[in-house]
Amino acid sequence: MPENDRNNKFKMIGKQSILFHNPPYIIGASSIAGKKEGEGPLGHLFDTVWEDPLLGQDTWEDAESEFMRQAAEKAIQKAGLSSNDIRYLLAGDLLAQLIASSFGVAELNIPFFGLFGACSTMGEALSIGSILIDGGFADKVLAVTSSHFAGAEKQFRFPLDYGNQRPYSASWTVTGSGAVVLSDQNSNSNGPSIRIKGITTGKIVDYGIKDTMNMGAAMAPAACDTIKTHLEDLNLKPDYYDKIITGDLGYVGSDILIDLLREYKIDVSSNHMDCGKEIFDPESQDTHAGGSGCACSAITFTGYVLKQLREGNWKRVLFLPTGSLHSKVSYNEGNTMPAIAHAVVVEAE
Amino acid sequence: MPENDRNNKFKMIGKQSILFHNPPYIIGASSIAGKKEGEGPLGHLFDTVWEDPLLGQDTWEDAESEFMRQAAEKAIQKAGLSSNDIRYLLAGDLLAQLIASSFGVAELNIPFFGLFGACSTMGEALSIGSILIDGGFADKVLAVTSSHFAGAEKQFRFPLDYGNQRPYSASWTVTGSGAVVLSDQNSNSNGPSIRIKGITTGKIVDYGIKDTMNMGAAMAPAACDTIKTHLEDLNLKPDYYDKIITGDLGYVGSDILIDLLREYKIDVSSNHMDCGKEIFDPESQDTHAGGSGCACSAITFTGYVLKQLREGNWKRVLFLPTGSLHSKVSYNEGNTMPAIAHAVVVEAE
Repeated sequence: MPENDRNNKFKMIGKQSILFHNPPYIIGASSIAGKKEGEGPLGHLFDTVWEDPLLGQDTWEDAESEFMRQAAEKAIQKAGLSSNDIRYLLAGDLLAQLIASSFGVAELNIPFFGLFGACSTMGEALSIGSILIDGGFADKVLAVTSSHFAGAEKQFRFPLDYGNQRPYSASWTVTGSGAVVLSDQNSNSNGPSIRIKGITTGKIVDYGIKDTMNMGAAMAPAACDTIKTHLEDLNLKPDYYDKIITGDLGYVGSDILIDLLREYKIDVSSNHMDCGKEIFDPESQDTHAGGSGCACSAITFTGYVLKQLREGNWKRVLFLPTGSLHSKVSYNEGNTMPAIAHAVVVEAE
Repeated sequence: MPENDRNNKFKMIGKQSILFHNPPYIIGASSIAGKKEGEGPLGHLFDTVWEDPLLGQDTWEDAESEFMRQAAEKAIQKAGLSSNDIRYLLAGDLLAQLIASSFGVAELNIPFFGLFGACSTMGEALSIGSILIDGGFADKVLAVTSSHFAGAEKQFRFPLDYGNQRPYSASWTVTGSGAVVLSDQNSNSNGPSIRIKGITTGKIVDYGIKDTMNMGAAMAPAACDTIKTHLEDLNLKPDYYDKIITGDLGYVGSDILIDLLREYKIDVSSNHMDCGKEIFDPESQDTHAGGSGCACSAITFTGYVLKQLREGNWKRVLFLPTGSLHSKVSYNEGNTMPAIAHAVVVEAE
């Protein structure tokens, strides 16, 4: 990793990356998951697994808000803080006009920026959160995202009651919410510090894919673009990272990503990991291409990736949530699915 | 205005405000407007007024993307830059999953953060844009938002073809897009520099309003909360500002705001201005409560407010776009309309 010149007022590196002068610490993180996620390979790692997908609410949308509320409160609690201590709240979800977020976090009473990056939103939230901390604009920031299988099917495809068929390229939206507390100071005396060292902010990449049942294909070019630019900007080889972790490309998109990067002589086949492939068991859970949704990368990161870093199994990861920026309307009007991927450098030290 | 201690690494002031150490300059701004906006009192101030609400596109959504594309390109051009010079693009709109933005700005090929603050999005974009510049994370940032009357009616209420009735408390979504280029350095040798000195980021405020035909009532409490906190954080009286400019409270919401602030002994009756009241002529244009939408505050700011600052008629304004964070789904499911307002201190010097 190149050192950033601290005498330079700018923290920009290369074309679209930043290296922080005062890399923020991750001092709390939470993962609230649904039943299916709890039954998956990572199920034992989540803070809470709920059997009831409605969480006692009347609608899928209110249920998703409740997932987010619980994730936000749990992360704040695990950081040893109260909501009054948080200077900024950054949140987003997949629902139109971000209603899962607005209704989920309103009661926390924290200055709020709503973000939309589709399933890349946790990457965007960690990026802007780190900027707020590093720049001295905040001492504590909460980043939280959510998704819900039933709400997402209703939002993007058909209500579950229609019982529509799913091709093998389709992914399964993860039900849950993950939250991360960033701080300017470390408060964790046990084990290594986990810090966000830099970011590479994605551009919108549109390969002309129009099949919303194959989001991996739409998002893989965006992941490729961000990884390639990141490595160039920071003059790194892929093996600098123990893992290069995409958000929710799934089985189809991950294969495409590895092929696309090979065209640029970049080989990530040995250290690439995709949250969408990790979170469900493809043999027993009938989830086809894998998991997706804002919560897919969020709870895999908070439940699994951070644990690997804390326990010293990994030292450095590039966390790269991926998002397809389409809507039901843009799809029905015949438009393509532009995509984006935001990379976050997370290191244990 | 209190001076920020530059030896303090933090730029936080009070509960939820920031004063910048290196206040960003506004070096370019654009306003692309629809026909009705062009016929309004500010019509002669907009860069471009289009007679065709579809701008030659096939759908309202594609038309809104085209408005945004033109606003982005015009602002970059007026700043004397090309899109390669812009380090970050911050954009948002009212459509589900921000499709006006994603399709509008994709071709600019600039690292992109999608933002959602409903009609407050220009406040959020200018806030995060200023943070990026002040913190040394970028030298040039583009902030752009859009809305479209026909697209918004379809998104939130009914397609225009249904010919539904509008109560007098309903506002009229502004068709257009406004864009602002922020820079770490001034490039304008004519007239005063226009700088963003600070921000106060809003919290979500929910007064329990459920009438989507009266968004002013839902948003006024959020504007009240942000103005009150801003004045307390910075220890200012309202008359510090030549104008305190809310986004789109309209006639109903503006009256409520003034009444609510009076309960805290804050009188803004003499210097309050609302973009929603300025943009249309209530006598001749049949717009009932006034204008609304992301573009309402955006093009009033870029077309009218900046001109007043540049020409020395005003020295200091508090620009405070307001947003109602509901969706058609949350409304139909019986939920309230939480709201938010983000304040930006803009000064000519």
